[in-house]
Parts: sequence; structure tokens; C-alpha cells
Amino acid sequence: MNKTRMEAFSDGIFAIAITILILEIKIPNVEPDKLFDAFVSQGHKLFAYVLSFIIIGMYWIAHHYMIHLIKNIDRNSLWLNTLNLMFICFLPYPTGLLGEYPDSQFAVFLYASSLSCVNITGTLFWFYSASLNENKASISKGYRNYVAILHLSPMVLYVFAMLLSLIKIELSYFVFILVPLFFIIPNRIVLRDPNSFDGKFK
Amino acid sequence: MNKTRMEAFSDGIFAIAITILILEIKIPNVEPDKLFDAFVSQGHKLFAYVLSFIIIGMYWIAHHYMIHLIKNIDRNSLWLNTLNLMFICFLPYPTGLLGEYPDSQFAVFLYASSLSCVNITGTLFWFYSASLNENKASISKGYRNYVAILHLSPMVLYVFAMLLSLIKIELSYFVFILVPLFFIIPNRIVLRDPNSFDGKFK
Amino acid sequence: MNKTRMEAFSDGIFAIAITILILEIKIPNVEPDKLFDAFVSQGHKLFAYVLSFIIIGMYWIAHHYMIHLIKNIDRNSLWLNTLNLMFICFLPYPTGLLGEYPDSQFAVFLYASSLSCVNITGTLFWFYSASLNENKASISKGYRNYVAILHLSPMVLYVFAMLLSLIKIELSYFVFILVPLFFIIPNRIVLRDPNSFDGKFK
Amino acid sequence: MNKTRMEAFSDGIFAIAITILILEIKIPNVEPDKLFDAFVSQGHKLFAYVLSFIIIGMYWIAHHYMIHLIKNIDRNSLWLNTLNLMFICFLPYPTGLLGEYPDSQFAVFLYASSLSCVNITGTLFWFYSASLNENKASISKGYRNYVAILHLSPMVLYVFAMLLSLIKIELSYFVFILVPLFFIIPNRIVLRDPNSFDGKFK
Repeated sequence: MNKTRMEAFSDGIFAIAITILILEIKIPNVEPDKLFDAFVSQGHKLFAYVLSFIIIGMYWIAHHYMIHLIKNIDRNSLWLNTLNLMFICFLPYPTGLLGEYPDSQFAVFLYASSLSCVNITGTLFWFYSASLNENKASISKGYRNYVAILHLSPMVLYVFAMLLSLIKIELSYFVFILVPLFFIIPNRIVLRDPNSFDGKFK
Repeated sequence: MNKTRMEAFSDGIFAIAITILILEIKIPNVEPDKLFDAFVSQGHKLFAYVLSFIIIGMYWIAHHYMIHLIKNIDRNSLWLNTLNLMFICFLPYPTGLLGEYPDSQFAVFLYASSLSCVNITGTLFWFYSASLNENKASISKGYRNYVAILHLSPMVLYVFAMLLSLIKIELSYFVFILVPLFFIIPNRIVLRDPNSFDGKFK
Repeated sequence: MNKTRMEAFSDGIFAIAITILILEIKIPNVEPDKLFDAFVSQGHKLFAYVLSFIIIGMYWIAHHYMIHLIKNIDRNSLWLNTLNLMFICFLPYPTGLLGEYPDSQFAVFLYASSLSCVNITGTLFWFYSASLNENKASISKGYRNYVAILHLSPMVLYVFAMLLSLIKIELSYFVFILVPLFFIIPNRIVLRDPNSFDGKFK
Repeated sequence: MNKTRMEAFSDGIFAIAITILILEIKIPNVEPDKLFDAFVSQGHKLFAYVLSFIIIGMYWIAHHYMIHLIKNIDRNSLWLNTLNLMFICFLPYPTGLLGEYPDSQFAVFLYASSLSCVNITGTLFWFYSASLNENKASISKGYRNYVAILHLSPMVLYVFAMLLSLIKIELSYFVFILVPLFFIIPNRIVLRDPNSFDGKFK
């Protein structure tokens, strides 16, 4: 199996999914002098665009990093990757819902659930591929588990966002913003080096 | 002729065709408190999205595998590949029809026919390219025919799905799901190795 | 200047332009039992889809072939290529018009003009790049002119299609089909080898 | 960190953003004999399409050139690049507004602001990456600043276009056209060679 073409295919899909987000923001149909007001009223869609763009960017960097470590893949890896990409490609839909229905608990639930599915399938892909015999020399069991847990960890926040939406929906948005911030701002958890990994989770 | 650019072009097309499937699921336009109901009523579209995503993923893996075996291509290969891609790119349309008209026999017929066209043109591409003099050393006649028959085989199920739609349309959906399952679940037919192929079809 | 990235960028654009053609065929909104009739009434759009898909495929193969021969590019080549791609990306629009207004002379005119612009800018890109000092060793003056004329030649047919639309619009469609057929069916004009080119145009 | 995959991802995003511009020009829905008039009335959209296509092409060439010079990237470069791509992908929206509301000052303001955001984030990406210790050997401080200022310079014209829109909106369009012309027409500022750069800004 050829890792290079899987990379090219995945990069293409990530690039398209992230780019078509903008298609969810339709050109408003109003009187020219009402255009600014129409733009302001699309504020939630713009927020949803920025949020999802950064989150998909985050997933792409994670995907990029996993594939960098995984030297060999097999047919099952390809399928698990396809499953992961299926949820990535789904994201423009819940993003559109969140932008159109910013006060809807269901929109928050679907958004958080969709992101969770990306994390679960991405972790499955990683865990399975990193466990292949051919990759055991380069990826230790401890490091494999470390990355798996790191990749699943945002789900705690996604569940938290769902719960907060029952109280006040603005709090959910705040939590959604926290996740990419954690991965963007350099910190010792994210930047842990596989070669010097000592098996300790702190 | 340069195989690499044909791969890049094909990968791009597969990636885009699979990603724009989501554009067929429009953001519903309802009262916020009716959003969950609206989402549920889009269930058939979500099913069609998942089905087509996995089927296009399956075609991509098959394409990937064929091109891996074919070392040399010529101008005619390029055109047969383009014909194959034309039917791949067409799939978002019958997928949209199936999602919008889940109870329509015609939607099932068009979906099954479109998939069959992908299989026929993909087999033509394979058969022609594998028969080129330059590839005869690496691909035996027996193996060429084996892959051709394997690639045509889902058509039996597609025809079967069409017939079942005349009785009960839910049965057609069941058959559509079977095809990718056969290629996803590891089995000795799909995993047959070209080097140890003994010319026996079982 | 890096030829590889220009290839990747161009391949991506060709792949997307060819794939979004299908987005011009909207899912009809009719009673389920009228679906077949609705599909039939979209026949012209399907024809326009197939025609443009094959024509863009033809342009891609020509582009692919030109870049294969051109070893070196400069900044101006990049811009001429961008101009060429601008007309490629424009094609979904006249394709949509042709599918929606099959009896309109203007739709035929715009379609033929858009294709002509692709041929003109593609020839400019080729002629300029092939004339660069760095490429003179590998591309003879005679062969450069030969490819330029070959690449411009479909314009004669496009003009002819425009004229025929004034008499009977079906004849224009017939001419549009002729162009890709000429490039698909192997013949000694298209397959002329650069190395054995003798400077004679027949 | 792998520069190649960042290039592939960025090329994909540029290619898609530039190609979906055409989706903002909808097929008009008029009587067939009114088609030409309908096309003419879409003139502003066609202008906006051409303008944005050439401007995104210009940004792609600049991006291409920066990455060519930057030999090494780190995690922060990846994120700054993602931020830059976020504004590139946003451009179809202000382009659509400009085409739909050609007489609106707000549309000009948003268009100019969006372009400015691309320039600011692109410069941040360049400045940060060129300042990395690993790139100091190949990129001098003077040349780094030179490229940064060159990349920021169009913002002067964008601000100017905004101011002119307060007087006469056609003048803004004229200024928007000037920017890509400056980068397309070969001149000694744009073509300055990094190796022979003498630290003088003229």
C-alpha cells in the first residue's frame, strides 16, 4: 500500500472541505443601502466559518502529524482513514446549521457530536495503524497510547459544551473556541517529542 | 505519458467528487424549535451521503490499486480514465436524487445504473491498460481477467437492487450496502495477491 | 521558478473545474411519480455536462502534454498559465447556460467564445514558454509552430458552430462533438512525435 | 515538520478558492430571448470574477515564492499559514458581494479589508518563518524586511480604494486593477533577486 497517494487524497479532501465552508454563507439579497445590516446579521455564520476553518486546520495538522509517524499502512488503515474523512467532509453541514441557528441547542449538539466523530475515527485510524507490526519499531506502545488519549481529549470539552448549552448557549461557543486554542498555543503537552517520551502523562 | 500526473488529476477528482456530496444536503429553513424534526426528515439524505461516500472511497481504493499495478499508460488509457472519472463525478447527482426521492424506483434505477457505468468504464480502463505490451511482463493474462471480473462483479448486485426495487424499495438499499461491505471486510477474494495468483477463480 | 508546483496548482484547478460541472444540474423538485419526466427534461443539461467534461479532459491532456515538453518556465509563463486557467474555470458558467437554454443562439455563441479563449490563452502560454531561450534546445521552431497551430485549430470549428447556430442550432452541437472526437480517436496529426518532426504540416 | 505537505495543502486550497469563484455567478432564470440582456446585466459579476481570479493568482505566486525561499518551517508557521489561507478562502464571499452590489461602498470596504487581511497574515507568515534560526543562513535580515514591506505595500492602495469609494466608486475599481498589474508587468522592484540584494529599497 502506498502512503503517498493516501496523503494526496486526504490533503485534497481536507483542502476542499475547508474551502467549501464559505459556500454556506450566501450573498444576501437586500436593498443596496441595507447591505451593511445584512452583513452584520450574518455575524453568526462568519463566526461559524472561522471556528470550523480553524478546527479543520487543527485536524489537518493532527492528521499530518500522525501520518508522519506511521511509516506503513494496510488496507484497513485506508478504510479507517476514509471513515475519518467522511466525518471531516460532513462538517460543512453542522457548521451551516450552527451559523443559521445560533440559538439552537440541537445545532450545538450536532456540531459537538460531529467533531467527536472526527476524533473517535481519527483515533481508531491512529491506534490501528500504530499497532501494525511494521510500525512497532518506530512507535512505542506508550507513545501510541499517549497520542490516542491526546486525540480523544477534546471530546471531554465537546461533551461539556453540550451540557453548557442546556444552561446558556453562549458558554458552548466559548468552549468550542478553547479546543483549537489549546492546540495552537505552544505548550508542553502538544509538543511532546516521540523520541524522548518517558511514558508519563504529565 | 506521465503516470504521476494522471494519478494527481484522478486523486483530485475523486477527492472533490466525494467532498461535494455534502453540498446536496441543504441547510433546512425552519423555525429554530423545529430544527431537530427538520434534521430527522433529512435522514434519507444523510443515508445517501454515507452510502455514496463509502462507495466512492471504494472506487478510489480500486483505482489506486489498478494504477499501482499498471506501470505504463498511453493516450488511450488517459481517455478511458477520463471516461471513468466522468461517471465518478456524476455520482453526486444520483446521490442527491436518492436522498430527495427515497421511495422512487427511478432514483434507485439511476443510482444503480450510474454505479454500473463506473464499474464498466473502470474495467475498460484496466483491461486496456493491462493489455498494453509494456505491462505484459508485470501483469499476467489470468490476473488481468481476474481483476476485470472482480471489478465487474458488483454489477450483478446493482442489477439485483434494481429488480428488488420493483418489489420493495428498502431491499434495494440493503443490497447497495452489501457491495462496499464485501470490499471493506477483509476476505480472500479481495486480498488475492497478484504474484501468487494461480489462475483459479476461487 | 518551480514547474512542479505550477503543475500541481493547474491539475488541482482542472480537477475542480471538471468536477463542479455536475453542480449545475440541480436536483429537480417535483412529485415523486414525475421524477422520470423531470430527469428527461434535464437531458440538455446532461448533454452539456458530458460535452464539457470531455472538452475539459481534452484541454487537460493538452496542458499535460505541453508542460511535459516545456522544461523551463519563468514568471510570465506563470501568468499566461493563470490566464489560461481563468478561462478553464469559467467554463462551468457557459456550460450551465447551454444546458438551461439549449435553443439559445447566445448560449452557443458564449460557449464557443469561451472555448476559443481557452485555446488562445493556451497557445499564448505554449508559444511564449516554448520560445524561452532555455527551451530552445529541446523544442525546435518548427515544432513550436506546429503545436501552436494544432492548438488553435479547433477555433475554426468553434466559429463554424457559431455560424451554424444562425441556421439550425442542432448543427452547432454536432460540431462541438467533433472537436474532442478528433483528439480522442488516434490519428497521425495528433500523435506526431516531436523528435521525428520534419517541419511539414501534413 | 514537512514543508511538502503544507505546499500540497496550500496549493489545493488556492486552487479550490479560485475555482469556486465561478459558482457565485448563477445561471440566470429568464425567457430565452432575454438571455443576452441577462448576461449583460451580470457584467459586474464577471468583472468581480476576473478581478478576484487574478488577485488570488497573484497571492498564489507570492505564496509559491515565499515557500520557495523558506527552507524550514515549524508548528507556528503552519498555523500562520492556516490563518492566511482562511482569508484566501473567504474571498469568494466579498467577491460575490462586489458583483451583486457594485455601487455599494460597504462592498468595496469589505473587499479591500479582506484583501488587506490576506496581506497582513501572509506577511506575518513570511516574517515569522524567515526569522526562524534555521532559515537565517539563506534569508538575510534586509531581504526579509524587503519582502515583508513589498507584501504589505498593496494595502496602501486598498486603503486608497476605500477612500476613493467615498467620492466615486468607479475609482475604487480602477485602483483594485492597479495592484495585480504592478505584480504582473515585469519591473525591477518585483523581480529583485535575493542573492544580489544590497539592502537598498529602490
